[in-house]
Amino acid sequence: MNKLLIVGTVAFDAIETPFGKTDKILGGAATFIGLSASFFNVKSAIVSVVGEDFPQEYLDLLSDRDIDISGIEIVKGGKTFFWSGRYHNDLNSRDTLVTELNVLADFQPKVPVEYKDSDVVMLGNLHPMVQISVLDQMTAKPKLVVLDTMNFWMDCALAELHEVMKRVDVITINDEEARQLSGEYSLVKAAAKIHTMGPKYVVIKKGEHGALLFQGKEIFFAPALPLEEVFDPTGAGDTFAGGFSGFIAQSENISFGNMKNAIIYGSNLASFCVEKFGTERMLDLEKEEVYDRLKQFRELTQFDIELE
Amino acid sequence: MNKLLIVGTVAFDAIETPFGKTDKILGGAATFIGLSASFFNVKSAIVSVVGEDFPQEYLDLLSDRDIDISGIEIVKGGKTFFWSGRYHNDLNSRDTLVTELNVLADFQPKVPVEYKDSDVVMLGNLHPMVQISVLDQMTAKPKLVVLDTMNFWMDCALAELHEVMKRVDVITINDEEARQLSGEYSLVKAAAKIHTMGPKYVVIKKGEHGALLFQGKEIFFAPALPLEEVFDPTGAGDTFAGGFSGFIAQSENISFGNMKNAIIYGSNLASFCVEKFGTERMLDLEKEEVYDRLKQFRELTQFDIELE
Repeated sequence: MNKLLIVGTVAFDAIETPFGKTDKILGGAATFIGLSASFFNVKSAIVSVVGEDFPQEYLDLLSDRDIDISGIEIVKGGKTFFWSGRYHNDLNSRDTLVTELNVLADFQPKVPVEYKDSDVVMLGNLHPMVQISVLDQMTAKPKLVVLDTMNFWMDCALAELHEVMKRVDVITINDEEARQLSGEYSLVKAAAKIHTMGPKYVVIKKGEHGALLFQGKEIFFAPALPLEEVFDPTGAGDTFAGGFSGFIAQSENISFGNMKNAIIYGSNLASFCVEKFGTERMLDLEKEEVYDRLKQFRELTQFDIELE
Repeated sequence: MNKLLIVGTVAFDAIETPFGKTDKILGGAATFIGLSASFFNVKSAIVSVVGEDFPQEYLDLLSDRDIDISGIEIVKGGKTFFWSGRYHNDLNSRDTLVTELNVLADFQPKVPVEYKDSDVVMLGNLHPMVQISVLDQMTAKPKLVVLDTMNFWMDCALAELHEVMKRVDVITINDEEARQLSGEYSLVKAAAKIHTMGPKYVVIKKGEHGALLFQGKEIFFAPALPLEEVFDPTGAGDTFAGGFSGFIAQSENISFGNMKNAIIYGSNLASFCVEKFGTERMLDLEKEEVYDRLKQFRELTQFDIELE
């Protein structure tokens, strides 16, 4: 079985949406990536850090899905990273209410020996220096390195972000971030510029408007599944990245054709994530549901026009 | 050959985009619909009204494409409908600078006898009473009636809009209009409500984010082609409607599967429209280019995942 190494936050989230609010619940990029990737036949491990306040039951939820958690450091007396946000009525934008870095402030990732030769490395959104440190610990060149990042690092760690970008194969960012990073409004032009910064594949996430995959002149588009109700978008981007990297790790095929399938799987899994608060839906999700929804994605996008 | 009847404005537009501005040029919903539909093997006619100031060369551009213009009334001493708008930097929004109804204010549409039994009727954006008047003149029930409308009529002629909606098969509106008309934020819920108002098929246009086709529980999505540069979005929605209705009229097949093809053709033709100012690109467009772009749409959307 191929190995997938995931680095990212394991955290507490408190979320307010028009539909309700939560106390501190399980969150974090690596959590969503790990849960999403666990739907594929891969050996996966999370590298992260939590405080002593982090419940064992949350860690158990991850190990129960065969995710190796030996790389999740528990800092004695430390407090877990906490994020709180409030979504606007359209659920497309949100205000951050609280960000407490806590143990994340001094996070030194330690890749478990067994995962130093992982086939796929999924670098979840974190300081670029932490992402670089993970790559530095690899003893064999991974078949694919996927980078997720955000506008925050473009604002305050741009040089380091450029360093890590030179060392990855795929970058996943949202449309506004692609525009900020490239200085181009057109996403086609933005992707072309981002290619020159390192990543051979550029995935631009547009939330409810789907995701674009670029490799040079080739473009593929995966829609988001139109849903009756989006309940909580938290973690959707990470779930997308988990589906993408989990599928690639399982299939071990990094052709453009297979990347297309990977972003369809990413969109598929993300469409479940938003149906309930936090990780709730991902925790009760069955493989059969994922396959059924794949059929929906087919019906949604496949057509058959005969050319004259 | 099947007959397509088009009703809508034939007008002067003056457009400002970040890339430049035009004087009064050829515009109007029926113009864009007609030019777009002319790529299909259909007999088409436009019902509209212009003033004596409308240049013969503009009318010739339409007849040169085998569009029957006998239903375009020329009002002696009248002035042609004029619209002027300025697009914002992102080209997704615009301000209307001038709207001079002129001869449109008293427009009484007259359907040419030969087109009173048209197979497909495309009701371009106009006062709902004008649209109803066209339907009242039909001597045979059309196989398909397509309605385009806009938020303006929801604000000031809602009852009449509901009347015409009861008599059409397909409605095409944009996402914000669908939300306004239905009172639902979710487009899935909005489409379901709009179904109950009459149209069996609901097409929701999302501009650069593509278009959704709903029939009951069935959903199809056509992306907009990602372009390096959008030059002028004027007429893109009408060009989409022209491609949609022109293809349906040609193929005479109103199954959901064929509707999918129709909205792919609509997106295809619209992707050309935005490449130059006004009708410029549609006037120099070759059929071969449309077929080539169809291949691009395939590559953009088609995937092949084997289910386990």
